[in-house]
Amino acid sequence: MATVFLTRRERFNAAHKLWVEAWSDEKNFEVFGKCANKNWHGHNYQLFVTVKGSPDSVTGMVMDLKDLKRVINEEVIDDLDHRNLDLDVPWMNGRMSSAENIAIAVWERLEGKLASFGATLHQVRLWETENNVIDYYGE
Amino acid sequence: MATVFLTRRERFNAAHKLWVEAWSDEKNFEVFGKCANKNWHGHNYQLFVTVKGSPDSVTGMVMDLKDLKRVINEEVIDDLDHRNLDLDVPWMNGRMSSAENIAIAVWERLEGKLASFGATLHQVRLWETENNVIDYYGE
Amino acid sequence: MATVFLTRRERFNAAHKLWVEAWSDEKNFEVFGKCANKNWHGHNYQLFVTVKGSPDSVTGMVMDLKDLKRVINEEVIDDLDHRNLDLDVPWMNGRMSSAENIAIAVWERLEGKLASFGATLHQVRLWETENNVIDYYGE
Amino acid sequence: MATVFLTRRERFNAAHKLWVEAWSDEKNFEVFGKCANKNWHGHNYQLFVTVKGSPDSVTGMVMDLKDLKRVINEEVIDDLDHRNLDLDVPWMNGRMSSAENIAIAVWERLEGKLASFGATLHQVRLWETENNVIDYYGE
Amino acid sequence: MATVFLTRRERFNAAHKLWVEAWSDEKNFEVFGKCANKNWHGHNYQLFVTVKGSPDSVTGMVMDLKDLKRVINEEVIDDLDHRNLDLDVPWMNGRMSSAENIAIAVWERLEGKLASFGATLHQVRLWETENNVIDYYGE
Amino acid sequence: MATVFLTRRERFNAAHKLWVEAWSDEKNFEVFGKCANKNWHGHNYQLFVTVKGSPDSVTGMVMDLKDLKRVINEEVIDDLDHRNLDLDVPWMNGRMSSAENIAIAVWERLEGKLASFGATLHQVRLWETENNVIDYYGE
Repeated sequence: MATVFLTRRERFNAAHKLWVEAWSDEKNFEVFGKCANKNWHGHNYQLFVTVKGSPDSVTGMVMDLKDLKRVINEEVIDDLDHRNLDLDVPWMNGRMSSAENIAIAVWERLEGKLASFGATLHQVRLWETENNVIDYYGE
Repeated sequence: MATVFLTRRERFNAAHKLWVEAWSDEKNFEVFGKCANKNWHGHNYQLFVTVKGSPDSVTGMVMDLKDLKRVINEEVIDDLDHRNLDLDVPWMNGRMSSAENIAIAVWERLEGKLASFGATLHQVRLWETENNVIDYYGE
Repeated sequence: MATVFLTRRERFNAAHKLWVEAWSDEKNFEVFGKCANKNWHGHNYQLFVTVKGSPDSVTGMVMDLKDLKRVINEEVIDDLDHRNLDLDVPWMNGRMSSAENIAIAVWERLEGKLASFGATLHQVRLWETENNVIDYYGE
Repeated sequence: MATVFLTRRERFNAAHKLWVEAWSDEKNFEVFGKCANKNWHGHNYQLFVTVKGSPDSVTGMVMDLKDLKRVINEEVIDDLDHRNLDLDVPWMNGRMSSAENIAIAVWERLEGKLASFGATLHQVRLWETENNVIDYYGE
Repeated sequence: MATVFLTRRERFNAAHKLWVEAWSDEKNFEVFGKCANKNWHGHNYQLFVTVKGSPDSVTGMVMDLKDLKRVINEEVIDDLDHRNLDLDVPWMNGRMSSAENIAIAVWERLEGKLASFGATLHQVRLWETENNVIDYYGE
Repeated sequence: MATVFLTRRERFNAAHKLWVEAWSDEKNFEVFGKCANKNWHGHNYQLFVTVKGSPDSVTGMVMDLKDLKRVINEEVIDDLDHRNLDLDVPWMNGRMSSAENIAIAVWERLEGKLASFGATLHQVRLWETENNVIDYYGE
């Protein structure tokens, strides 16, 4: 049985900042630079979600792309798009909104939901800018 | 004398929202949709600035690209990058931070400064997302 | 009053071929090359629609981007996406499905509809491949 | 000996549909949605083929890129470009033309041919749209 | 009769430097910065050539894209690709290889040749990097 | 502890050629084709450097992106950008400037330097053109 990897791209536009409450302003600016701007900044994030599985012998599909798209939107995009990652997203509470942590949180949101479609979540890739990208494989 | 158009791309990542204070919440959400989220959202903006002029007979250049880059950064990018367009930018005060208005404000910031380099500002193009883009020609 | 140009990108994936019924097979292949394959081929088309107008003094917008998106989808994308341009699209009947003709037909579909939103259609740009693109300005 | 991965991008524009003859129209539309349009639709596919090997101590190359390009074109692109994947391609006969199955078929076409150049096929990546991509590693 | 604009992208990879022989080393470095490196540097240039005309009533085409591609390659790309713009290209002799001057020279090479195909050269666009682009309209 | 992969893109524009001194001109042209042009050609290279590690429990970052950017620039980009890879770069001496060998040399430059930041170099990816890309994992 062939194992094939299927990736879907979705996008969200969100505000955030990098800021540790327990630190002084000076330390925050030293560590996070311009990302510590108190009034927030934002990004057009690109999210690539990869699942793996065997193509169905009749349909030729690892999973229905419409289902993959719907799950990513319901579990992730609807909560993040046009939101403030630090104020509006319950499942980001208590986490610094670094791209690393967003990718981990997205994995946690999707892993169980996708399992019910016969595919296994393989990778979450998150582009924060055209120059910075994060990959997470769930371990 | 040939007229050549020289364009430079710069980028900035910023937060904003679309919101009219004089309106009710309901009307704001009706008109601006998810862009009216009170806690802000954000974008990776791409700015393309075009000047026109005759290439210098010795250097072959409409204007020094290092100067063009420096002026755009000093006059625009340094004020917008990793900022909140509605709270942190004096020259956006009193303007809705629509992409249209940002483009007009950028034009106003650049037109006079670029004139001193022997080139004429021709176009400001602003990509807000990969699907939405604004052009302004100063009139 | 400033005139600003607002562009929206939409996409459609369609099949077509270039074929003149009145010609012999040989002449069709000579003129259209591999585009004349009788069993069709297809493209991921990218459509950029540009309107121009003055930003509203309150909202800062040339027109509501949600309206622009909706009109393009209702008038154009819903008819073209995942369709055969030569068999499935009434408003392409009798026209060779060259990118040139598609752009002209899209203009005709949109011009009147957009006028009612206070904006003027300015340009239809159609990318057929990453190497080929058509622009049409309605005249 | 260093192992280096060399990837070549090639493109093809093709028509296809997703359709199971044994199913009713209703079931086809339910499962495949708009991809089941009977008159076909199409895509600009992007194919990335990756081989791995040790760079030659004199030329510094894993394999001659001209050979890699030629093999991909002779074995894959010449058969797929400007064709109907369901009607015109003998080696797709009996396979649903899902992106998953195209990637597997491309692997089968290339694996043996590339082995004779001292490189090992590592990955076939197929972009169907800017939002959907398939990876296959031959197992 | 509709006027439609048809654009073709071609690419070339070339070496060059910016250097005025009559100047001192110091002045060259001051004016051209790192572009004055004596041992050359290089770019993946992207060239977009736009012609305008009326689509043929039978074929729907402004001009045959195969002809446009062939002319651009014969007149421009074959001379520039994998060459040194300052040493290998007779028609760049005596011109600083700024992107501005390359665009003007490409216009001169193409204007007459394209006229014989019933289309009029409209624009030469040359991307030197993802951040710098030149447009020339022949006047 | 989660392992997350962080990638940074940087760019450099350089000249090079593929040429074996011990070979005849004929053999060089036969093997390297137009890449053997004696007067050099060049590319806009895109370099993606990936490190892996556990996000810091306070900052949420695998390593400080400013440090990653600085190290890549100091160790690699400053030496390669607007240079001739065959004449100007001491650490490329004696190596054919194939994309494969550049990627290996970049790995060697970065591996030790990045270790001191608590992250492990995972991948060096080098795009020579939009169609050709090299990956190297250090073994």
